[in-house]
Amino acid sequence: MKFSITVLIFSCFLGLKTISAQDQPNFIVIFTDDQGYEDLSCFGSNKLKTPNLDQMAKEGVKLTSFYVASSVCSPSRAALLTGRMPKRVGVPGVLFPRKNEKGLPTEEITIAELLKEKNYATTLVGKWHLGHDKKYLPLNQGFDSYYGIPYSNNMSIADGIDISPNIVFNDGYTSEKMYSDISKIESESKKGAKNSLKNKPPLMRGNQIVEYPTNQNTLTERYTKEAISFIKQNKNKPFFLYFAHSFPHVPIYAGDNFKGSSGTSPFYDAVQEIDWSVGEVMKALKENGLDKNTIVIFTSDNGPNSHGSAKPLKGRKFDTYEGGQRVPAIFWAPNKIKSGMVSDEIVSSLDILPTIASYANIPLPNDRVFDGYDMSDFLKGKMEQSPRKEMFFYGSNSTEIDGIRLGDWKYLINGYRKTSWRKLTEEDLKMKLFNLKEDKSESRNLIETKTKKANELVRRMQRFDRDLEKDISK
Amino acid sequence: MKFSITVLIFSCFLGLKTISAQDQPNFIVIFTDDQGYEDLSCFGSNKLKTPNLDQMAKEGVKLTSFYVASSVCSPSRAALLTGRMPKRVGVPGVLFPRKNEKGLPTEEITIAELLKEKNYATTLVGKWHLGHDKKYLPLNQGFDSYYGIPYSNNMSIADGIDISPNIVFNDGYTSEKMYSDISKIESESKKGAKNSLKNKPPLMRGNQIVEYPTNQNTLTERYTKEAISFIKQNKNKPFFLYFAHSFPHVPIYAGDNFKGSSGTSPFYDAVQEIDWSVGEVMKALKENGLDKNTIVIFTSDNGPNSHGSAKPLKGRKFDTYEGGQRVPAIFWAPNKIKSGMVSDEIVSSLDILPTIASYANIPLPNDRVFDGYDMSDFLKGKMEQSPRKEMFFYGSNSTEIDGIRLGDWKYLINGYRKTSWRKLTEEDLKMKLFNLKEDKSESRNLIETKTKKANELVRRMQRFDRDLEKDISK
Repeated sequence: MKFSITVLIFSCFLGLKTISAQDQPNFIVIFTDDQGYEDLSCFGSNKLKTPNLDQMAKEGVKLTSFYVASSVCSPSRAALLTGRMPKRVGVPGVLFPRKNEKGLPTEEITIAELLKEKNYATTLVGKWHLGHDKKYLPLNQGFDSYYGIPYSNNMSIADGIDISPNIVFNDGYTSEKMYSDISKIESESKKGAKNSLKNKPPLMRGNQIVEYPTNQNTLTERYTKEAISFIKQNKNKPFFLYFAHSFPHVPIYAGDNFKGSSGTSPFYDAVQEIDWSVGEVMKALKENGLDKNTIVIFTSDNGPNSHGSAKPLKGRKFDTYEGGQRVPAIFWAPNKIKSGMVSDEIVSSLDILPTIASYANIPLPNDRVFDGYDMSDFLKGKMEQSPRKEMFFYGSNSTEIDGIRLGDWKYLINGYRKTSWRKLTEEDLKMKLFNLKEDKSESRNLIETKTKKANELVRRMQRFDRDLEKDISK
Repeated sequence: MKFSITVLIFSCFLGLKTISAQDQPNFIVIFTDDQGYEDLSCFGSNKLKTPNLDQMAKEGVKLTSFYVASSVCSPSRAALLTGRMPKRVGVPGVLFPRKNEKGLPTEEITIAELLKEKNYATTLVGKWHLGHDKKYLPLNQGFDSYYGIPYSNNMSIADGIDISPNIVFNDGYTSEKMYSDISKIESESKKGAKNSLKNKPPLMRGNQIVEYPTNQNTLTERYTKEAISFIKQNKNKPFFLYFAHSFPHVPIYAGDNFKGSSGTSPFYDAVQEIDWSVGEVMKALKENGLDKNTIVIFTSDNGPNSHGSAKPLKGRKFDTYEGGQRVPAIFWAPNKIKSGMVSDEIVSSLDILPTIASYANIPLPNDRVFDGYDMSDFLKGKMEQSPRKEMFFYGSNSTEIDGIRLGDWKYLINGYRKTSWRKLTEEDLKMKLFNLKEDKSESRNLIETKTKKANELVRRMQRFDRDLEKDISK
């Protein structure tokens, strides 16, 4: 009793957060959109400068075999937030802005919901893309507040979302014109909208649309202000900030201060603005005395689309080649995460939930299968090897298993998806076995010679998918 | 009413079986053990003469793409009797004579149980191999009577089977010596017994052992007498005779009249005795006026072991190459099955239950998945094509799916099992795609060139196995 009071007085005196015997660190997950494996200077790019992220990498852990769970947006986000495979949570492919479109089932437990157990303040700033019907929106999935676009920034306005009485219109829009867009969208085919309606996502606060169309020029800047405001407001209690940038997904925008800043292309300008944003967040942590008690994770939702680069990896967004799912990743937290470590051990976005749970001393629910591993001992440097030895690859919009990485080996039955800017080669269609240690760019198919190894991987892959099917058909 | 009485009088007058408006044909399934695709003169062998089976083929339907559901004994028999995949019924591999060994679950519905609905007399003459614990024995699986050995003829006596007070001992055996064998077996490893105990199966009638060790010299002859006796006894009511020969499985025996009869080897002598046995059964049908109302099916449980031939097919027993599961098959029934038809359409032992159900006018239970198709219209010549377009291949002792035939194409991830008399080649271990129409002997691996086709087959194969897993995990 005496001890608690002393601590309380002490912390008030220093203006620090309340410290309890069971300290609760803050968590920030910064998730960018369509940024490739190479698209940071600390991951090898010479097309841009990312000093803030490079600094984070220097002070934290840089992971060179970090995988998201899908090569496209919605399933990758579903897996990040739940620690479970996209197929397991029923979000195997991209969601589109149509009425009654599905979303992440509310029975799933997100990181935000998990942290609510210990009274964390939780927010999403940025892109959601896990269902825009009210019941699927962030406020119903563990987030106290939400500011951002409900899906990708090349999509159109959807029906069924509440509209704020104080909505702001841009580009000469009126209520009538907005409702006309909505009804046009609803009469369109499942996936798309006419080109004239594309690239016009609404901006939301809470459950309401507050701006249409979203002014994308200033979006990164506004997101950043929102994030910093949340940090300041919650400096005295534990918080979780899920900061999901809308860029560098197409259409690419950068604020006026960043247009042309990279000297290479608008794509890199946009990433440089994201790097600036990361710097602002880090500054806010320091200014508010939170930099010793906050774990910051930076990564991307999938490989690069038509812009950006995944070099030296093969493939891009949509692919189960490495370039589709292996993305840049930095984990940062002085005292809590080793400084200056670069590791090629396998880690996945699936591991973020169990790792956060571990740092926050929250036991994992035992009523469901988690596909993630607790990486805390590995990140602290207590374990040299990652507890994860394998990674499974599903197609970008399907429930079919396409491949497996097991140790240094990777088997793929597919690997490609045809896109407008890329043709399939005969090689893309073949069954493949690669040794990633010697052949990071998946250029030498060893399936004809390493047949026993190929068999081992196929067996493991099939067993995983069968177990997963069993689990979901329960 | 008047009609029924007339029919009854008419049939009694002619000494025929009772004919009802819904006529109930008899069914005889003759199932041999380890007889290969080529091991009949009508399937191309010049090592023996099988005039009775050749005659059956001439008068009935000879199928050249007929598949059993496994390349080994127990799972093949489980599938034959249930119309369901071995993995689905929980018998994926060979059962061995050990205490508390599993068997075909009693919840499964066998052909015999199905036919009991219409009051068929049912018997098994010959080998069972679906569990020797009392609850798994034939009398508990729909058979009114049983005479034969409980598993393969190279196996040893098992504990837990009742022994008849009138047991006959051979080879100088006594009660004490038999019980000593039982206790030795029980202390052995799972699969085997010492060589001195092998090749000594017990002979059973009903649930009791009536002879030990079985005199295998006279076994085929005694089976045949038993079968004919059953036919005679039941000539006035519908019946199902499941006649499961113990030969030409090793150790090979032929009766005194057949030793040396083929002039080639004891294996072919044994098959010639089986051919004689088939002739005796056919004679009994004619003599008892049953040949117009009995459907006779002849096939083998899997490919040839170290003896016999599956030419021109590749592989043997244990394999998922064609030679492991594609076996000779003849379907015979004047008026009910087309005469003189030879077809390369895909048919399987899995189809026998639904086909028998159709001929007997018994609806299939709708509480479970059946893997078989009703072949009656195809066998009658009403349909030119088989309703079956695909066949799935599992390993000989595993629940892993190894391959698929879809139309003319076959994909295999494996195909082989190493045995004492056969080494694996590098080719055996590769993933393979064959065009069976052009390459019946699976000698040209097309996986490098027909990649789209290979993908299609793998996808279909995976989906089937996943659906099957879902079904069994319900």
